[in-house]
Amino acid sequence: MSDTKIPYKIYLSEDEIPKKWYNLRADMKKKPAPLLDTKTMQPITLEALSEVFCRELAEQELNETDAYIDIPDELIDFYKMYRPAPLIRAYCLEKQLGTPAKIYYKFEGNNTSGSHKLNSSIAQAYYAKKQGLEGVTTETGAGQWGTALSMACSYFGLDCKVFMVKVSYEQKPHRREVMRTYGASVTPSPSETTEVGRQILAEHPGTGGSLGCAISEAVEVAMNSDGRYRYVLGSVLNQVLLHQSIIGLEAKTALDKYGVKPDIIIGCAGGGSNLGGLIAPFMGEKLRGEADYRFIAVEPASCPSLTRGVYAYDYCDTGRICPMAKMYTLGSGFIPSASHAGGLRYHGMNSVLSELYDQGLMEAVSVEQTSVFAAAREFARIEGILPAPESSHAIRVAIDEAIRCRETGEEKTILFGLTGTGYFDMVSYEKFNNGVMTDYIPTDDEIEAAVSKLK
Amino acid sequence: MSDTKIPYKIYLSEDEIPKKWYNLRADMKKKPAPLLDTKTMQPITLEALSEVFCRELAEQELNETDAYIDIPDELIDFYKMYRPAPLIRAYCLEKQLGTPAKIYYKFEGNNTSGSHKLNSSIAQAYYAKKQGLEGVTTETGAGQWGTALSMACSYFGLDCKVFMVKVSYEQKPHRREVMRTYGASVTPSPSETTEVGRQILAEHPGTGGSLGCAISEAVEVAMNSDGRYRYVLGSVLNQVLLHQSIIGLEAKTALDKYGVKPDIIIGCAGGGSNLGGLIAPFMGEKLRGEADYRFIAVEPASCPSLTRGVYAYDYCDTGRICPMAKMYTLGSGFIPSASHAGGLRYHGMNSVLSELYDQGLMEAVSVEQTSVFAAAREFARIEGILPAPESSHAIRVAIDEAIRCRETGEEKTILFGLTGTGYFDMVSYEKFNNGVMTDYIPTDDEIEAAVSKLK
Repeated sequence: MSDTKIPYKIYLSEDEIPKKWYNLRADMKKKPAPLLDTKTMQPITLEALSEVFCRELAEQELNETDAYIDIPDELIDFYKMYRPAPLIRAYCLEKQLGTPAKIYYKFEGNNTSGSHKLNSSIAQAYYAKKQGLEGVTTETGAGQWGTALSMACSYFGLDCKVFMVKVSYEQKPHRREVMRTYGASVTPSPSETTEVGRQILAEHPGTGGSLGCAISEAVEVAMNSDGRYRYVLGSVLNQVLLHQSIIGLEAKTALDKYGVKPDIIIGCAGGGSNLGGLIAPFMGEKLRGEADYRFIAVEPASCPSLTRGVYAYDYCDTGRICPMAKMYTLGSGFIPSASHAGGLRYHGMNSVLSELYDQGLMEAVSVEQTSVFAAAREFARIEGILPAPESSHAIRVAIDEAIRCRETGEEKTILFGLTGTGYFDMVSYEKFNNGVMTDYIPTDDEIEAAVSKLK
Repeated sequence: MSDTKIPYKIYLSEDEIPKKWYNLRADMKKKPAPLLDTKTMQPITLEALSEVFCRELAEQELNETDAYIDIPDELIDFYKMYRPAPLIRAYCLEKQLGTPAKIYYKFEGNNTSGSHKLNSSIAQAYYAKKQGLEGVTTETGAGQWGTALSMACSYFGLDCKVFMVKVSYEQKPHRREVMRTYGASVTPSPSETTEVGRQILAEHPGTGGSLGCAISEAVEVAMNSDGRYRYVLGSVLNQVLLHQSIIGLEAKTALDKYGVKPDIIIGCAGGGSNLGGLIAPFMGEKLRGEADYRFIAVEPASCPSLTRGVYAYDYCDTGRICPMAKMYTLGSGFIPSASHAGGLRYHGMNSVLSELYDQGLMEAVSVEQTSVFAAAREFARIEGILPAPESSHAIRVAIDEAIRCRETGEEKTILFGLTGTGYFDMVSYEKFNNGVMTDYIPTDDEIEAAVSKLK
């Protein structure tokens, strides 16, 4: 190991947990287009948004001016149970690749929910509790968000109702059981417990459900609760990116300690919460002209919103209760093929990231899942950590960039986000290990058909 | 939080990873009885033991005089990928219990294998590689040891052949797939690949297998390999306790930093590897008369080797290739009921721990699994981490002791070992969550029948 001064894992002390989230929009000269009220098609007011989200979350959603927003003490106490998350120098991977590149990754999987989602679920649960709500409702597909939300609700004594896509509910009983252990009620969707669920079951008996259907059920329960419940979302919203900025802030503090400046920063991108959180403080420097970095968003070839979508107003949620956002999107009706990175199967991209991409401040690439799993397995074997399929998209591109450095001899510094672990994705690993995983790339006609309604 | 000086998580720096393992036997005035060669029934020689284990591991197995043994640099490099493991102050649990007790736990689950087993598997793989072996064979039931060994072999480029009890192989496909992802071959046992497997299949077609059978198959493959493979074990041996002393050494260093001295130290006990590792340096102080502590070994009521077994010479492995050890045991033919803590279903107890218990230097209690899962769920909800059923035995007793402090008003300091996570145990959690888990305590007649052959 040539660089002996930098440890394998850089841990910050608890005192170094950020006390404020960083709001990237404050440093953007050209701001993202405003959210639209779906009833009026006008920029949404705080008042209207507060009917959808808790008041303080609505304020965060609309706040474009304050660069820093205080993290409540109660949240910092919770963060202390699993943060600061380590920044890891991938010495073993570097050696394996024979690259002069220096590779770092910020690991967010060291908590029971297994991903970065907990950073925002605990904040959303906190504000819900503060506002006196009885509980929250949500949907979950892959299960990471549902798990993170049930942990957060358990901590604050909130009720948590999760609608889980029936096919996932049956195929991922372990995920379901983690949520139940944390006290959440988990209902396979479609269910007989809602109007919309009963309708769908009447029309399609025996259906395995869909994310759209699960969202609709979660929304219905919240809407019919006389204000006792709210429906909450784990990605794509600006408030979620704000909470996730803790990832980038910690990573930057850790790198600054050792005088390390990354050249390339890489994150996987579904709705954008992890990517937006990781790059936030670095992008802030770039926007303020203080430093330059290459940012790379990595999306699945099966769901290429940035690389093949259009920049247009679209619905954030298929339930259509959230305001509309201008974003890179494949259309809220786009159904991605069944891939093994459920967390990246989202039709659009957070509006801040979309605007940054549109301004040319960030790049995007798409990768196929078999190459992603090849990278995941290589990484697991040499770095020890078994990565989630979502995070492995970033690993794929980090390895590709490191191999490029081997070819050019450049000693670039690469930082990527390792957002979660793959313990509940072993069925996918099994397919890959058995050589029966396939790739799917939508045809131009399919993309055109999906986005044509938005143009 | 009253005690603000002590952080939630005490992380040591990489420089503080121990450079030497601590060998508790060196400080014991009355040593454990010697291991016996099963061929001669005399104390085993280094030469004979080196046919079973790698030379350096055989030396460690027999070493009763050196208190400290150097950890090779290559191992410290690997340890740096997941160590130092955090020592965590359970502030939230203390508050929940309303106890004046101060509770700390050493968390060993922050690595992909999910448990402390990696501390020894990597050492055993290292010495196997150094000796020029092609690979190792082993058996696995619950899967933690097999996973840890496959990770270690992957890192050192050793072949790893795991025989997995067929019923586990079928019921725990995710565990199996983690091992395969790390490059291990995983064979359901009994199999057609060995003589003993074919015999068992001929006699019992359709059998789900047993740990004893899996061990026999693993041993046969190693024995017939012309010395290219060795059979390795994840617990009960003295060498394993030595490697696991890193748990206690780190815990003690972390506590010493803050001037904290535990009153009670609690660990779950199957073969004894985690318990022995955790208590090692503290017990050393007690043996040398420098300090006093209460030590509590927690075993399952279904497999009570310390609390209801006899202290006698017995086989360590049902394959009977390891030497015999004098230990507290229920007899190597004792078949514990199918419990949800597979890692604790072992008939005996490491000979060092057995001797310490026999000398009255350590206590032991047994607990029933429904009360263990109740503690596990309570812990998960308030401390965030989803614990393994094995580790939850220690949680149960730590909570009981903390409640006792609430009743007496004593401000005791409790340290326990949280050896692993429960991500692959959700079938067991499901049984508990659904209220269909039962307890089983062997009758006196059953115990008597099991141990009668040893007397």
